[in-house]
Amino acid sequence: MTRPAALFFDVFGTLVDWRGSIARDARQRFGDGFDGESFADAWRAEYQPAMQAIRSGGRGYVRLDVLHRENLDRILPRFGLDHLPETERADLNLIWHRLDAWPDVTGALSRLSVHHRLAPMSNGNISLMADMARHNRWRWDAVLGAEIARDYKPKPGVYQAGCAAFDLPPGRCMMVAAHSDDLVAAKQAGLMTAHIARPNEYGPGKGEAGPSTPVDLAARDLEDLANLLGC
Amino acid sequence: MTRPAALFFDVFGTLVDWRGSIARDARQRFGDGFDGESFADAWRAEYQPAMQAIRSGGRGYVRLDVLHRENLDRILPRFGLDHLPETERADLNLIWHRLDAWPDVTGALSRLSVHHRLAPMSNGNISLMADMARHNRWRWDAVLGAEIARDYKPKPGVYQAGCAAFDLPPGRCMMVAAHSDDLVAAKQAGLMTAHIARPNEYGPGKGEAGPSTPVDLAARDLEDLANLLGC
Repeated sequence: MTRPAALFFDVFGTLVDWRGSIARDARQRFGDGFDGESFADAWRAEYQPAMQAIRSGGRGYVRLDVLHRENLDRILPRFGLDHLPETERADLNLIWHRLDAWPDVTGALSRLSVHHRLAPMSNGNISLMADMARHNRWRWDAVLGAEIARDYKPKPGVYQAGCAAFDLPPGRCMMVAAHSDDLVAAKQAGLMTAHIARPNEYGPGKGEAGPSTPVDLAARDLEDLANLLGC
Repeated sequence: MTRPAALFFDVFGTLVDWRGSIARDARQRFGDGFDGESFADAWRAEYQPAMQAIRSGGRGYVRLDVLHRENLDRILPRFGLDHLPETERADLNLIWHRLDAWPDVTGALSRLSVHHRLAPMSNGNISLMADMARHNRWRWDAVLGAEIARDYKPKPGVYQAGCAAFDLPPGRCMMVAAHSDDLVAAKQAGLMTAHIARPNEYGPGKGEAGPSTPVDLAARDLEDLANLLGC
C-alpha cells in the first residue's frame, strides 16, 4: 500500500457520536424522562430516504440542514412535540452542528494531520462541518463532501469531486469510515479504504465492530489508524 | 455597523506577498542575477486576462493552477527559459502554493478567528489555498472562493456562493481586501467591506495605501483590522 496523500473522513458515526449527543441534548430540553435515544434513532432513520430523492435525480440538491429540518418536522408529532414553535425547531435542528467527537478523535486527527491532508467527506453541508470542527477543535485542510459535489454519498461523484479538489488521483486518497457500504462505494470510485470500528454507534453492540468488505486497513479507532499509518 | 459573522479574505496581495515570494524563489532557481521581480510582474500581468475568458463565458471553468501554468509557458521565452523541462515547469508553477504571508497576517488571523468564521475568498483553487494555509499556519473554517462557485471574482456569484456555504446573508459577511475593485464588487453583492493597506504590493510605493471607494473599515494591516473589530 502506498502512503495516502489525503485522508477523507466520514463524520456521522465515524468521528462523532450522533446518537449519544442528540439524546443528551434532547433530554436537557425536554426533561430527564424524555426518550432521547429513540428520538435520535427516529430522526436518523429519516436520513437515507431523504437523500435518496436527490441521489436518484428526482429532486435537486438541497443541503443536509434542509433535509434534517424536514425530517425533524416529520418526527416531532410522534414524540408529542408538534406544538414546538418555529424558533425552537430551528435551534433544535442545529444539534447536528455541535455533535461530540468520540474520545479518540481530536488527538488522532492532530497526529494524522502532520503527514496527510485531511478533509471531511460527509453528507453534511459546509456550515455544519465548519461548526462541528470548531466545537471539537479539529483542523481541516478544506471542507469537501456533498456540498462541493452537490450530490450525496455513496454516489461516486462525491468522492471523486473531493480528490479533484485536492488535485489528487483517487488512488492517492483514502476514505476512512465506520460503515462498510461507504467504503465499498469509495473503493469503486478508486480510493483506498480504512475501516474504523464503532461497535456502539446505534446503541450498545449496535454498530460495525469490523468491516464486512475487503479494506486496505481495519482499525480499532482513530489512534489505531494513526499507528497503522506510522504517524 | 453590525459585527460580521464571517470574514472573507482576498489572498494574493492582501495576505501574502506574491511579488517578493516569487522573486526570491526564482532567484534561488535561476541565479542571483535573475530579475525575479520582473519575472513575478510578468507572470502576474497574465492573471486578469486569463480569468476574463472564463468570466465572460467564453471558456468553461478551469482552476487557477491551470491558468497559472498556461501563463508561465507564455512568459518563459521572455526570460530566456524556453528550454525549461516539463518537471521543472510543473514544480515552478507550485510557487503559488507556498507564498509567504505579510508579517502581520498569521497572528492576526488567530485573533480574528475567535469571534468570526474565516474563509479565503480568493480566485485560487482549493488545493492551492490548502497548501498556502499549511505553509503559513493559517486555520480556515472552510475554503470558499472561485472553485466553489466555478467562476472568478469579481463576478457577484463568487461572493454570494461563499455566503450561502456559510448559511449567512451577505449583509452578515465582510470582504477583506487590499484592492478597491474587489471591495466594490463585494459591496454590490451585498457584503460589508474592509480595506487593508498594502502600499508595496507591486513594488515600493506601488500598491493601495488606502481605499479608493467607500468601505465600512479601512485598516493599516490585519492587526489593525482585529483592533477595529474589537478582537
